[in-house]
Amino acid sequence: MDKIIQHKVIEQFVMQVFLEMGCSNEHAKQATKTLLDADLRGIDSHGVARLSGYIRLWEVNRINSKPSIKIVHETPSTAVVDGDSGLGLVVAPYAMSVAVEKAKNVGTGWVSVCNSNHFGIAASHAMLALNEEMIGMVMTNASALVAPTFSKERMLGTNPICVAVPAGEEPPFIADLATTTAANGKLEILQRKGEDAPVGWIQDQDGNSVQNAHALKNGGALLPLGGDREHGSHKGYALGAIVDIFSGVLSGANFGPWVPPFPAYVPMPENQPGKGIGHFFGAMRIDAFRKSEDFKRDMDLWIRRFRNANPIRENQPVLIPGDPERVCHADREKNGIPLVESVWTDLQSIAQKFNIKL
Amino acid sequence: MDKIIQHKVIEQFVMQVFLEMGCSNEHAKQATKTLLDADLRGIDSHGVARLSGYIRLWEVNRINSKPSIKIVHETPSTAVVDGDSGLGLVVAPYAMSVAVEKAKNVGTGWVSVCNSNHFGIAASHAMLALNEEMIGMVMTNASALVAPTFSKERMLGTNPICVAVPAGEEPPFIADLATTTAANGKLEILQRKGEDAPVGWIQDQDGNSVQNAHALKNGGALLPLGGDREHGSHKGYALGAIVDIFSGVLSGANFGPWVPPFPAYVPMPENQPGKGIGHFFGAMRIDAFRKSEDFKRDMDLWIRRFRNANPIRENQPVLIPGDPERVCHADREKNGIPLVESVWTDLQSIAQKFNIKL
Repeated sequence: MDKIIQHKVIEQFVMQVFLEMGCSNEHAKQATKTLLDADLRGIDSHGVARLSGYIRLWEVNRINSKPSIKIVHETPSTAVVDGDSGLGLVVAPYAMSVAVEKAKNVGTGWVSVCNSNHFGIAASHAMLALNEEMIGMVMTNASALVAPTFSKERMLGTNPICVAVPAGEEPPFIADLATTTAANGKLEILQRKGEDAPVGWIQDQDGNSVQNAHALKNGGALLPLGGDREHGSHKGYALGAIVDIFSGVLSGANFGPWVPPFPAYVPMPENQPGKGIGHFFGAMRIDAFRKSEDFKRDMDLWIRRFRNANPIRENQPVLIPGDPERVCHADREKNGIPLVESVWTDLQSIAQKFNIKL
Repeated sequence: MDKIIQHKVIEQFVMQVFLEMGCSNEHAKQATKTLLDADLRGIDSHGVARLSGYIRLWEVNRINSKPSIKIVHETPSTAVVDGDSGLGLVVAPYAMSVAVEKAKNVGTGWVSVCNSNHFGIAASHAMLALNEEMIGMVMTNASALVAPTFSKERMLGTNPICVAVPAGEEPPFIADLATTTAANGKLEILQRKGEDAPVGWIQDQDGNSVQNAHALKNGGALLPLGGDREHGSHKGYALGAIVDIFSGVLSGANFGPWVPPFPAYVPMPENQPGKGIGHFFGAMRIDAFRKSEDFKRDMDLWIRRFRNANPIRENQPVLIPGDPERVCHADREKNGIPLVESVWTDLQSIAQKFNIKL
């Protein structure tokens, strides 16, 4: 049975944990907001379920809770930010704020980040652009779990792309997608349930398509969006590669198989070419292209026309990217966040470790 | 049997055709180069096979061969370009040159285009950034052939994304992909051969997955990259939607089901909200992020590491996006371009129409 907890309760708890780790008040607030955004939006794999993972990285000195995050190179529309090994959860909002400031000045802002760590859900950061009447774009690389087309070897992370677009009367368009057939979080759910994965999600250590959800633990790999060559896996591979290049190569972070792993017990890859994990952020001011009201009117038209596309099944309308997460957010904000038992146990251990009430 | 023709012969012929259509010498050169790029790179569906289509659009006054292409709105890093109903083949290089100029000044340039037409292959335009030590990015919307997840109705074009990244000693990384499982050109090949399509490429008019390659002619649709919901079609749909918004909504072009069709005999959609087809172009100066030599050294490392990833089959190494097209280009530049009989017949009719030697 899932344990249902009010989000305010988790929020207070997480905030205290980050403060105990030595984060400043502002950083603790940002990190807490990012984690809670994931749980509220229903991306359970990226919320408080990861809190103990961040703590372990901090304990082995791979996360610096008092980072001095700074711009190391810039032009009017670009910057490279060095995250100083900080929590990605706080490096990302900083980098996005730099992109937004640049967009205010010259129309758009583009920030590539090195020396960071896992930043939670991309949507949480991309949505920061929405209040500024801007389009937000966010990417990140991640440790290698994905085999390119024709490869046995894991070379890329699940490397997500997120784009958030403001509308007028309609809620914003928010696409946030791993460049794999299925996100690793979905595979973890199947592993817990002891169920098989659909064909096209994973391959085994020899590169054979398999359904055993545990194949990744034995040297297997997730597959790029498309699944196999005939269904366009070379496109998913190319998209993941673009994310890796924009996030890792453009910033001087690590890339490909050299990206640091999230579990603290996994040794760091040898001969790393860069620093930490890389991210990429973009902000485009709407009125740098068109009158804001004209754009919003057309975005409303876009959203309504797609929502009213003729559906295959009467009871399943066409969705706009971001719809399911928004519905989940409204529900969980009101009714609480369901935590699976292992996550609840995890949080209780953390509470004990830091002597915080939960 | 394919007819093999030297690319210089086709080039001279195509150049004369565009001049006969009333294009300026410069425009005819640009349009010819873009079409030939497609044939040389092996994207046969987007090369001279489309020449008669462009002519028919010009004949019904949907293509203006003497366009006054201009910037209608701009900031230091952005512009909206109105293509004045010109050939996309010439509007696109102009828009890309605007993006490149802006990148020279402020680090990056982003140009959304309205009132244009089909622009050939995206890679041809994105590659213009490479000589400037910039990353090039190109998108375009297109007339609706693709059904979003859960939709019976065609709502999006095959909406490609292209990213070209310069390297050092290695050839550039060039990803150019339709956001569908398979490009429409691949389906046309199966139709000509009378072969079935793989599962996951298309659906029929009721939204059932089918293999009949002719299903599109009977109200069916291409499927977004991913194929079905379980394999991530909502991600392919979201990517196609992002392309549509950046190209169409941001520029004031048409979007979704309102994008003008390529065949001149297909009536224009009613109640169009914008002008013509939309494109989106980006240019990012490498040294706006990092020292150019450091970036290129790391891109070489990226490319070599991925090319040497452990392959599933000994005889099929892992490819870098752009590899197959580059190999094809070298071969066809030397040995000529193979044209299927219908395209050769088509070119002969054009030669007759304009009284040009072929």
